[in-house]
Amino acid sequence: VTPAAPVGLSLRDTVRAADAGSAEALLHATGFFREEEVAIGRELIDETVARGAATGYSFLFADRADGSLAGYACYGPVPLTESSWDLYWIAVDPAEQGRGIGRWLLEECERRIAAAGGDQVWVDTSGRDQYAPTRGFYQSAGYTVAARLADFYAPGDAKVMFVRRLVPDGRIPREG
Amino acid sequence: VTPAAPVGLSLRDTVRAADAGSAEALLHATGFFREEEVAIGRELIDETVARGAATGYSFLFADRADGSLAGYACYGPVPLTESSWDLYWIAVDPAEQGRGIGRWLLEECERRIAAAGGDQVWVDTSGRDQYAPTRGFYQSAGYTVAARLADFYAPGDAKVMFVRRLVPDGRIPREG
Repeated sequence: VTPAAPVGLSLRDTVRAADAGSAEALLHATGFFREEEVAIGRELIDETVARGAATGYSFLFADRADGSLAGYACYGPVPLTESSWDLYWIAVDPAEQGRGIGRWLLEECERRIAAAGGDQVWVDTSGRDQYAPTRGFYQSAGYTVAARLADFYAPGDAKVMFVRRLVPDGRIPREG
Repeated sequence: VTPAAPVGLSLRDTVRAADAGSAEALLHATGFFREEEVAIGRELIDETVARGAATGYSFLFADRADGSLAGYACYGPVPLTESSWDLYWIAVDPAEQGRGIGRWLLEECERRIAAAGGDQVWVDTSGRDQYAPTRGFYQSAGYTVAARLADFYAPGDAKVMFVRRLVPDGRIPREG
């Protein structure tokens, strides 16, 4: 079952050239992505527009009725694994946060990952205080901390790895 | 200090087109790399020959006097981190194992990573029984298990993440 869309939004999984600029602006606006991350976010879209599915990155865009972007998610299978997937990020326009757009995008990513045979969704985030809301978002959505890598991003900035187990086509956690 | 070379071998950090085939044969010969991994190992060399340092991958080759390959290592900085580096793999010709070639390549990688400002070296390996010697190799070289991600590669096949902390230009562990 596809989760219900927040009012006024529609979901799109095709990538358009104009998404690169919109995504860049959105990533900037959230204040949660560093310049390098914003640049990579943009590049992944440019590359997907140029090369298509061969890049291994999939996108979900939450479009407003006027065609502007309220949020988007980027995900894909982890290379060299049988059924692990990475959720690279979810970004939501700060003006629209609190409406369930992030959760809607997350659940739709999970549904598509499960349908594609994925049984684990991995999310990396930072252990810094600023990212407490991000960690809370994933925890409340059923994700658990699989690892905490001290000083990974920088001294004092740990990588916190979340995972959620899915059952292909069922999306029911296999274990705690 | 550069570790002493095992007898008859010399170290090379420039990549040649012929290395792709030699590395592929070596990865196959070890029996530790799956087809997909061997293919990626080869691709990284082809890509580095084509694009140079822009790929972000560095190589160390252990050449025999006749120019054939006794082993090699591949490593590089982890994108979006300040000073974390990945050691992607070390492969040694099975006919030459037990001579300290792997350790020699490992220490030389660490020396170069520290000289480049890296302070953490990350190594991912499998938790399967077959990889017990690989895990023992890194443990005996001062690496500790930072995380164990159950079923990451496949059901029953965990990812074991090792780390060693370096001090830039000193290579002395900062902590346990």
